[in-house]
Amino acid sequence: MALKFAKRVADIQSSEVRELLKLTEQPDFISFAGGLPAPELFPVDEIKKVNEVLLEKDGQAALQYSTTEGFEPLREWIANRMNQRLQTNFNKDNILITSGSQQAIDLTGKIFLDEGDIVFCESPTYLAALNAFRAYGCEFVEVATDEQGMMMEDLEAKIEQYPHAKLIYVIPEFQNPTGLSWGLERRQQLAKLSAEHQIPVLEDNPYGELRFEGEAFPSIRHFDQAGTVICTGTFSKIFCPGYRIGWLAADEEILQRYTIMKQGTDLHSNTKAQREIATYLELYDIDTHIHKILELYRQRRDTMLRKLTEVFPKEVQFTRPEGGLFVWVTLPEQLDVTPILQDCLAEKIAFVSGETFYPNSKKRNTFRLNFSNMPEDKIELGLEKMGRVLQKYLEN
Amino acid sequence: MALKFAKRVADIQSSEVRELLKLTEQPDFISFAGGLPAPELFPVDEIKKVNEVLLEKDGQAALQYSTTEGFEPLREWIANRMNQRLQTNFNKDNILITSGSQQAIDLTGKIFLDEGDIVFCESPTYLAALNAFRAYGCEFVEVATDEQGMMMEDLEAKIEQYPHAKLIYVIPEFQNPTGLSWGLERRQQLAKLSAEHQIPVLEDNPYGELRFEGEAFPSIRHFDQAGTVICTGTFSKIFCPGYRIGWLAADEEILQRYTIMKQGTDLHSNTKAQREIATYLELYDIDTHIHKILELYRQRRDTMLRKLTEVFPKEVQFTRPEGGLFVWVTLPEQLDVTPILQDCLAEKIAFVSGETFYPNSKKRNTFRLNFSNMPEDKIELGLEKMGRVLQKYLEN
Repeated sequence: MALKFAKRVADIQSSEVRELLKLTEQPDFISFAGGLPAPELFPVDEIKKVNEVLLEKDGQAALQYSTTEGFEPLREWIANRMNQRLQTNFNKDNILITSGSQQAIDLTGKIFLDEGDIVFCESPTYLAALNAFRAYGCEFVEVATDEQGMMMEDLEAKIEQYPHAKLIYVIPEFQNPTGLSWGLERRQQLAKLSAEHQIPVLEDNPYGELRFEGEAFPSIRHFDQAGTVICTGTFSKIFCPGYRIGWLAADEEILQRYTIMKQGTDLHSNTKAQREIATYLELYDIDTHIHKILELYRQRRDTMLRKLTEVFPKEVQFTRPEGGLFVWVTLPEQLDVTPILQDCLAEKIAFVSGETFYPNSKKRNTFRLNFSNMPEDKIELGLEKMGRVLQKYLEN
Repeated sequence: MALKFAKRVADIQSSEVRELLKLTEQPDFISFAGGLPAPELFPVDEIKKVNEVLLEKDGQAALQYSTTEGFEPLREWIANRMNQRLQTNFNKDNILITSGSQQAIDLTGKIFLDEGDIVFCESPTYLAALNAFRAYGCEFVEVATDEQGMMMEDLEAKIEQYPHAKLIYVIPEFQNPTGLSWGLERRQQLAKLSAEHQIPVLEDNPYGELRFEGEAFPSIRHFDQAGTVICTGTFSKIFCPGYRIGWLAADEEILQRYTIMKQGTDLHSNTKAQREIATYLELYDIDTHIHKILELYRQRRDTMLRKLTEVFPKEVQFTRPEGGLFVWVTLPEQLDVTPILQDCLAEKIAFVSGETFYPNSKKRNTFRLNFSNMPEDKIELGLEKMGRVLQKYLEN
């Protein structure tokens, strides 16, 4: 093959998670790997009704090309929802519908990043965001992160070191991969630093609605006086991910750039999917649906945390998230997760090793567990088997 | 606003067509502007049935995350269809489902183009492809084009001038905007030149199924011995564009790069849309549906060509396409289409002026007319009014 690809092709690897997902399609696999919602809660019957109503009433419009910005009633619902839940101040003209929030991340790279630009991120952070940004030739600077979020002294030091940094990427609610949420003060401070240094923040929030307990703080955007905080959200975790419907929320002047860039990328997101979701929101109470999700995921998280305490060796630490989809496990420093994952895969148990979540530092003693997609008996069985594998490595 | 955007933001303009489309949403507008299918032919009742069957049988899977590559039965159908219609030799592993063929074009830019790279294209060519490629910082070299397609002597001269060119972009069937199709010899020659110089060809074919009359030639890919021709196609023109489901077809080694790049871009295309289309293809005969589209568009094209002959001034030339969606009009060279378009918009008639279809040469005396989206009486009325406007400009 003598074809010359773009430089970025060499920089991007296939996501380990998506490759693992293919493996775990085998029916008897116990998978803690993906970030998949529980499909048994998808409102299939309601969606049948939604399709009848939508196709009867607006069939032609639902199947036709539509505007890049997205379906207006849906954008209006999103703005209202964000204002209620995140204490923001958006209206429909601040919302662009995207093909999942993954596209919102990609478009953010596309409108902000030139080759060699610096992106600040939490350490660890969402690996598919790293791949999306990497396509635009950026470099990552990891900011030290603790259980309150990104550490602001370290961010300030790094802004001083890299004053021309172009973007700060954060997931302040039930972060992927750690499951932890930012404290109030860090949110305020980040909005302030972003404004002072005119470095935009992408506040990625796919899991914020999935809070089982504890206090919800306002979003970072709530503290934004300068319009430098850009938000993204998605229906993937509160409705169904197969629709690939997410959104961006930003000041109009910024959003317009996103819209123009999206035109060239895919014209617009699926018209029918947008209208199905809007029709669902008209006909049904999504909070009742989300309540069911919360109940089930809470039970699964409880089972996971209880079992982790029971069967994992005492030297192993793990987070105790108040919501979301993930628990983050830290092994004693001398252990390397790679052979442990291999042994677990041999026993048909999958999880994601932590190193891909660090763009640079590549810590080898962490991994991520998903609790939303497996029934409780499989969570118990899988963790028992994993506990035995870990015990073996700790004894060596 | 002190935020620093990427350089590409300054290079990309909002598509004139999509801005016009917003204007023409006014109900009494006669629009020849978009490339919209006739919505009255969308198989709405069949899609109701499709949703019942699909949600009953595979509801959970249809609403869940799925593989980046796409739904296997749909990829298999596409490979078979291409092999039948285009005399290619693909199997499902050569097919990647994309979010419309627009995303296939964008991903082609993403995997092939670095800043400053050269793309060869027809003159004129599809304007949203120009915007998609432009986002990767390329420059365009227009290759002289006549009614047989891109002129191969000119392409050879330009390859000599730009030996490191990275991509050749062509639409050989009912080209957008001219409506014309390439002759057989040009197809053979392009495949040969592509292989000799190892410059990949993107063979974009959204309209190929819409042939009303005349002989269909094999695709450029049919003549490709070296695996350097990459194809794209879409369900937008033969089914419904609102689904945003298109595809890429290429040798596996190339397709794998596309797949990895798509992961970071939007994870995968809408699962339910892919399965709805696959279910439709199982339950119904799409050729019966396409036959209805051909009948209607043929009538509309006939009406448009008849009326153009009757009411446009004799000095005005236009193409006579054997299929597709568009007629391309060339005014005497001294005329500028811009004030003519303004006058027509004032009379609530819209079309797209030709200059945006030329990346560099900006000819000002051409425009594109769409015939698929307007009923015959509106085509007649709109062209009559346009004829009077043109007459006025020709008399001045």
